[in-house]
Amino acid sequence: MDVSIIAVGTELLFGQTVNTNATYISNQLNHMGFNVMYHHVVGDNPVRLKELVKASLNEMDMVICTGGLGPTQDDLTKEIVAEAMGVDLYFDEKCYAEIKSYFDERHRSMAENNRKQAYMPVGAEIFHNEAGTAPAFGLEKDGKCAICLPGPPREMKWLFKHCVVDYLKRFSSKEMYYKVIRTIGIGESDLETKLMPVINNQSDPTIATYAKEGECALRVASQRDTAEMAKYAVDEMIEMIDGLIGEYIYSYDDDELNQVVVHQLQRRRLWLSSAESCTGGMFASCITDVAGASSVFAEGFVTYSVEAKSEILGIDTAVIDKFSVVSGEVAVLMADGARRKSKSDISVSITGYAGPEADEGRENGNAFIGYSCGGKLGNKRGFIELNTKRNDRKWNRNYFKLRMLLTVYNILNEKL
Amino acid sequence: MDVSIIAVGTELLFGQTVNTNATYISNQLNHMGFNVMYHHVVGDNPVRLKELVKASLNEMDMVICTGGLGPTQDDLTKEIVAEAMGVDLYFDEKCYAEIKSYFDERHRSMAENNRKQAYMPVGAEIFHNEAGTAPAFGLEKDGKCAICLPGPPREMKWLFKHCVVDYLKRFSSKEMYYKVIRTIGIGESDLETKLMPVINNQSDPTIATYAKEGECALRVASQRDTAEMAKYAVDEMIEMIDGLIGEYIYSYDDDELNQVVVHQLQRRRLWLSSAESCTGGMFASCITDVAGASSVFAEGFVTYSVEAKSEILGIDTAVIDKFSVVSGEVAVLMADGARRKSKSDISVSITGYAGPEADEGRENGNAFIGYSCGGKLGNKRGFIELNTKRNDRKWNRNYFKLRMLLTVYNILNEKL
Repeated sequence: MDVSIIAVGTELLFGQTVNTNATYISNQLNHMGFNVMYHHVVGDNPVRLKELVKASLNEMDMVICTGGLGPTQDDLTKEIVAEAMGVDLYFDEKCYAEIKSYFDERHRSMAENNRKQAYMPVGAEIFHNEAGTAPAFGLEKDGKCAICLPGPPREMKWLFKHCVVDYLKRFSSKEMYYKVIRTIGIGESDLETKLMPVINNQSDPTIATYAKEGECALRVASQRDTAEMAKYAVDEMIEMIDGLIGEYIYSYDDDELNQVVVHQLQRRRLWLSSAESCTGGMFASCITDVAGASSVFAEGFVTYSVEAKSEILGIDTAVIDKFSVVSGEVAVLMADGARRKSKSDISVSITGYAGPEADEGRENGNAFIGYSCGGKLGNKRGFIELNTKRNDRKWNRNYFKLRMLLTVYNILNEKL
Repeated sequence: MDVSIIAVGTELLFGQTVNTNATYISNQLNHMGFNVMYHHVVGDNPVRLKELVKASLNEMDMVICTGGLGPTQDDLTKEIVAEAMGVDLYFDEKCYAEIKSYFDERHRSMAENNRKQAYMPVGAEIFHNEAGTAPAFGLEKDGKCAICLPGPPREMKWLFKHCVVDYLKRFSSKEMYYKVIRTIGIGESDLETKLMPVINNQSDPTIATYAKEGECALRVASQRDTAEMAKYAVDEMIEMIDGLIGEYIYSYDDDELNQVVVHQLQRRRLWLSSAESCTGGMFASCITDVAGASSVFAEGFVTYSVEAKSEILGIDTAVIDKFSVVSGEVAVLMADGARRKSKSDISVSITGYAGPEADEGRENGNAFIGYSCGGKLGNKRGFIELNTKRNDRKWNRNYFKLRMLLTVYNILNEKL
């Protein structure tokens, strides 16, 4: 089935927003066996949008639009798609009630123009949006299908996952199954080289690698006549992959590293704490992002200044002067201090230069992760030095945070 | 001048790569006064690519292609664009020499298929690529212009900056100016309602609104004969907008709220600290995301448990028992404790339920922000209650963080 994805929004043509929606949808469709033939971006201009939708419906089996479902005057995607498909709009009471209750629940008054969002094409299957106010829909007519989704990626993804995936199943005779494996500590091209024996000459299951900052994910997908056959093919492939790169895998179920770490701590009833300098709270924030983190994480310290390191974590300033504040010795003492203060089982710390300007004679991307374990984990202390050789503050901070997570993961899994 | 941007590459349609090239080029063109009307993405398929290039050249004044200039058989953009413009290719000795020396310099042998990259359309202005092997070009004929650039963003950007910007100057008679205003505390549709008097019947400057999670941005843009005239029109419009929604504006220069807050603190030589429960370090992390934050932020506390709130911040457990841990009273005491411990001028705190499960009788999205000021700011203490009515942990945490930033902003700007 041939598909065009049309993103509607002048902000995309101004270059203010990247069209990540098309990438997300393409990725999903691909794994479900649809052929994405084009992405188009067009502004909030009724004439050009109408022309593009009509031409695309003419040439393709399916058109998926994102954006232009909002309450304002220039949001016209729904109206234009309905017209192109030759159907009228009607006022949907249920949609209206949902939009109204969305505002009521937030104790906000609904603007009059939000009423517009409750008009729906006759015959459409409505996708009720729990992530925002714009209801979305799929509409089939004369062998063509049009799907309209809101532009904000969070809403679009929510709807895709909860409504569109099921809706699309009617177009496919095959059943699809996939798993996402997550790895850390190996680059994408090294990963591909190691996987060559299973990637080559492989048409189903398909294996795709995705590099994320500092991490790499593998998606293994199969389409077979039954769900069981697809699952069997995927599981068999994952066993082969495990034999080749098992040491780099931290999740077989697309879990984030912070989730994996929190769940392992929960299972073992261990308490974690942190002392952060250059990451400034990113590690704590990432641990507490996991629901239920309160059973493993009681407190964290952001000790940005030298004074904070000495006063809050009790590090002797003479030691800081001797080794310098960015050193393995200070990192370990930071971890010790945080563990003592919080009476936790594991503490992890960081001190380093994220950029853009390191101290004289030092390099951006140079940092030390300290760790200190006690209680059930026995006494274990040490540090790891990092050197990213990058000046990019955002990139460095994120990488440092990931490596702190990996340090805890390695301690828990006796790899450190 | 109307422009279409065509990205060529099957990896984009597979959803493996995001089309950031189109965003970059659009942004650049916009500032130079060109009108980007469409983005298209098409795979490495000669039939569909030819059709798209021809249709775009027909409708637009200019077509910019990215990708498909490589040495392999499926790299066909140059050939197809030349054909669509009705010109032949010739073997360019200078390009060939450059490609060869690119390999020589790296002590690599040149593959035979790299010869293909030295063929150029007759009459094209060649953009010599110092960042890779693919030469790029601009080609004018019969009032139309086609520009071909390589797909790898690093090469594309290098060529755009060093060759394309100069090449494009010949086409522009208008000058463009724009500003992005950022607001917080008002929804997109309310914003538009309030701006109706200036949005209606307005063709230049144009005003566009963009909702981000919990925030809203406004872009005011003008194209006039001179840069001064465009700037004057934008400034005049912003004055009118300021009169209508000034109370919600926190930046007139597209700065993020954390940048604005850090820079204001720096200018006034004030120290900030934080005590976070449900945001678990997100506020500290967002402040320290700004380069130079070390001159305003010395330390932060992530006090997730009741014990941490009492032991680290020195809050009497009797008070916590009396008011409950999620209360305005505890929030203020958290802020007091963090300020005292860190000897800072302003401290902000939060305690609340991010979700997914609040304590019995309490609601997710309910939180209290506490603040405590001293020193130069005089003694000011208080709390703000939030009720998002949402169960979405990620959304709530992000919103709480934004409201903490807003609280500091409001204190600094005497709005609180």
